[in-house]
Amino acid sequence: MSSLGASKLSLSSITTETLWKRSGRYSENSELLRLKDRKKSGFLLSPTHEEEITALVAGIANSYKDLPIRLYQIGRKYRDERRPRKGLLRAKEFLMKDLYTFDYAYEQGLGTYESVRKAYKNLFDELRIPYLVAEADSGSIGGDLSHEYHFASPSGEDIVWSCNSCGYTANEELVEKRVNPERRVNTGVLAFTTISADHNTAIRIIIPAPDSLSKDHVSTPRIHDYVNLHALNRAGIDIDSSLEPQALSVLLAKTKRSVTIHDRSLPQESNILPLDLTVTRPGDSCSRCASGELDSQPAIEVGHTFHLGTRYSAPLNALVTTPENTEVLMQMGCHGIGVSRLIGAIASLLHDERGLNWPRIIAPFEAVIIMTPQVSEEDGIALYDMLRSGGVDVVLDDRASKSVGWKLKDADLIGYSVVLVLGKSWKTSGSVEVQCRRLGYRENVKEGLEKTVCELLDRL
Amino acid sequence: MSSLGASKLSLSSITTETLWKRSGRYSENSELLRLKDRKKSGFLLSPTHEEEITALVAGIANSYKDLPIRLYQIGRKYRDERRPRKGLLRAKEFLMKDLYTFDYAYEQGLGTYESVRKAYKNLFDELRIPYLVAEADSGSIGGDLSHEYHFASPSGEDIVWSCNSCGYTANEELVEKRVNPERRVNTGVLAFTTISADHNTAIRIIIPAPDSLSKDHVSTPRIHDYVNLHALNRAGIDIDSSLEPQALSVLLAKTKRSVTIHDRSLPQESNILPLDLTVTRPGDSCSRCASGELDSQPAIEVGHTFHLGTRYSAPLNALVTTPENTEVLMQMGCHGIGVSRLIGAIASLLHDERGLNWPRIIAPFEAVIIMTPQVSEEDGIALYDMLRSGGVDVVLDDRASKSVGWKLKDADLIGYSVVLVLGKSWKTSGSVEVQCRRLGYRENVKEGLEKTVCELLDRL
Repeated sequence: MSSLGASKLSLSSITTETLWKRSGRYSENSELLRLKDRKKSGFLLSPTHEEEITALVAGIANSYKDLPIRLYQIGRKYRDERRPRKGLLRAKEFLMKDLYTFDYAYEQGLGTYESVRKAYKNLFDELRIPYLVAEADSGSIGGDLSHEYHFASPSGEDIVWSCNSCGYTANEELVEKRVNPERRVNTGVLAFTTISADHNTAIRIIIPAPDSLSKDHVSTPRIHDYVNLHALNRAGIDIDSSLEPQALSVLLAKTKRSVTIHDRSLPQESNILPLDLTVTRPGDSCSRCASGELDSQPAIEVGHTFHLGTRYSAPLNALVTTPENTEVLMQMGCHGIGVSRLIGAIASLLHDERGLNWPRIIAPFEAVIIMTPQVSEEDGIALYDMLRSGGVDVVLDDRASKSVGWKLKDADLIGYSVVLVLGKSWKTSGSVEVQCRRLGYRENVKEGLEKTVCELLDRL
Repeated sequence: MSSLGASKLSLSSITTETLWKRSGRYSENSELLRLKDRKKSGFLLSPTHEEEITALVAGIANSYKDLPIRLYQIGRKYRDERRPRKGLLRAKEFLMKDLYTFDYAYEQGLGTYESVRKAYKNLFDELRIPYLVAEADSGSIGGDLSHEYHFASPSGEDIVWSCNSCGYTANEELVEKRVNPERRVNTGVLAFTTISADHNTAIRIIIPAPDSLSKDHVSTPRIHDYVNLHALNRAGIDIDSSLEPQALSVLLAKTKRSVTIHDRSLPQESNILPLDLTVTRPGDSCSRCASGELDSQPAIEVGHTFHLGTRYSAPLNALVTTPENTEVLMQMGCHGIGVSRLIGAIASLLHDERGLNWPRIIAPFEAVIIMTPQVSEEDGIALYDMLRSGGVDVVLDDRASKSVGWKLKDADLIGYSVVLVLGKSWKTSGSVEVQCRRLGYRENVKEGLEKTVCELLDRL
């Protein structure tokens, strides 16, 4: 955040309904935790702070000369999670780093967006854990450019698609495949009748019959399994896909209008936006390159960048004057890192049966010195000072009441990057046992101890 | 907190009702902000964390050998304030430092309590603002020993009583006066009939007629103005003092029992605990010394220490084994500082018409160097480096787009302890104008600049 010239601030977690009603986010958001005070005034626990920060900046910035403004906070956020689970991964209360950016023109806004992407890249690179940057839909936050940062993980609840050739990566909502020319010749179609979210319009969706359909012919095909509902949604077609077949029939009988939508691979009226309505399957062709194939993996989302444009500055009337002395709505961005989720995700990725395993950059300490009864306090302090002056962020475990075995187990559990056992050989030969569980390293080191520790740390 | 060997932690702000029902604090607390999640489960926003921390420590401490445990956090707290007002002084959401202590015996608990008082004394002493330490009632938190830390201030909503001779200081709820022997000879009495909180018992309260009563004889005397309701409450007599006279009459007609309580200065049955039922007035005699008189002043409470005893360990079953291998309930303490209120209180005490005025220990920077167009960036950096290496926490205001006048006003507004104006005389004679608004100091300083700045800071 410093590299972006962003200033730190701290907004209240409790927010009034009023601002959220102005932005239009109040009624639509089913994940808001809401509360009333003793006067029955309505409040909410903020899941993000776009409304507050926009109102704040609208009050302090008048001219393009006051911009860019970049403000961030690291604090608690709240969400009425449908499925709170897996500890820090998905909880009602979590810790987030949220950055909000303000520019006076679209180009500057995009420049800011690219700077933030670069800062996020630097941050995630420092963790030295492979991550995916997926093109993403901006969802209820709004805006028109967005990327998600993911760790591939079987614990993940998101799906990320990647091309095996060109590096194209997108999330489940946004992934685009290329129409397989062979499919065009397939004359069979599969049709679903569903209903609009307002229950007024019957919607008929026609897609090419997939090759795999024959396998499931015993049961009625379900719309979720064959139709890309995200694509429908992005095209502004909101359907109610939650209905049981019988309830759906009853409601369909009452509709007065009906619309038919064809997949882009099927013959249709020429003036319609071609929609890719089939779900993406592993092996589908990449839309961005000639030869790649797409595959999916479960992933944990740990960061998100959004270019918001005027999604919030418009309803909250956040204006600045331009160099030409006209008034324009500010161009905004919002950019989050799930701090507590990041901790949970890294813990789930790097732990083993003995304990945690932190990347050096977020380890509570890079190294621990475990003292044994064979050495004196002075020995411990001497080694500690030597490593500290060598730039190693080290802690001395001098708890005399605990056994060496207990302390070793505790160090594994905590997940210090490097463990040094200071035993008898320190006295006899000046050597120390150096362990690094993540790299499978365990050696008695006599010469160049600091160098050895630093070399191990450089790989973590 | 470090001086107490306390470890920092961070508990969630959202808490389930369950623990609070076990401690008995759920139903009685009208200041809780409550919320429901999508499953209609009940949660609250914690105003303090005794329940959570007791449950946590009960799970990790088994033996007296694991104690003392001292844990603190600095975080957001929530209270459904009856009268949120004056910005940071009284808000629904505020920042608090809360420390919780655990010992295995009463004596150790008291030792801890004294250590905390000492740490609090050191902290408040460092602010160099006069403060009052008042003996206090422990209220709904529970426990049996408690002190409040106050700044005397007309903005305060608390009342603190002090003796002008012996230093006895207590809050409005707890203050004790000595019975004035002259009052005993006054044969007049004043009687009030009120009702118990459960509306089952008529309560007749008889106190000596105060000298001042004659002045107000035109209206009916109100119980609040003459009877010390805190003393009644402490004696376990809960009355409903909120009723209008007519409603009170209706309810009194339905009561089946009646109790009469006399002030300690009046003749009464000998086996009753003598209660001081008259309100304290300025000039009343101090209960702790022979000659002092009590007087009151409005004050802002900024800290509180409580010895809780087993108030929470008992209902939450937080046990440890003693050296004698018996099981005992842990002795607890809880100790808070209102961080955001402290900021607001200091701002209200030390500001003037030009801006804020921070004590050096909490100033954003101890000093600011204001650059003028007459000096170069190198001059600014030279002075900055000189003061930094002299141990002064200084910031350089090198905003070239702002005028010197604007920057001086801004520095006053922010309230840096010392302001240095780096102008033409730096070039000509090597002198700098040093300003300290709080001390009314403004001099051109040539020799011993660092010494001058440090001497000023030492007085702030």
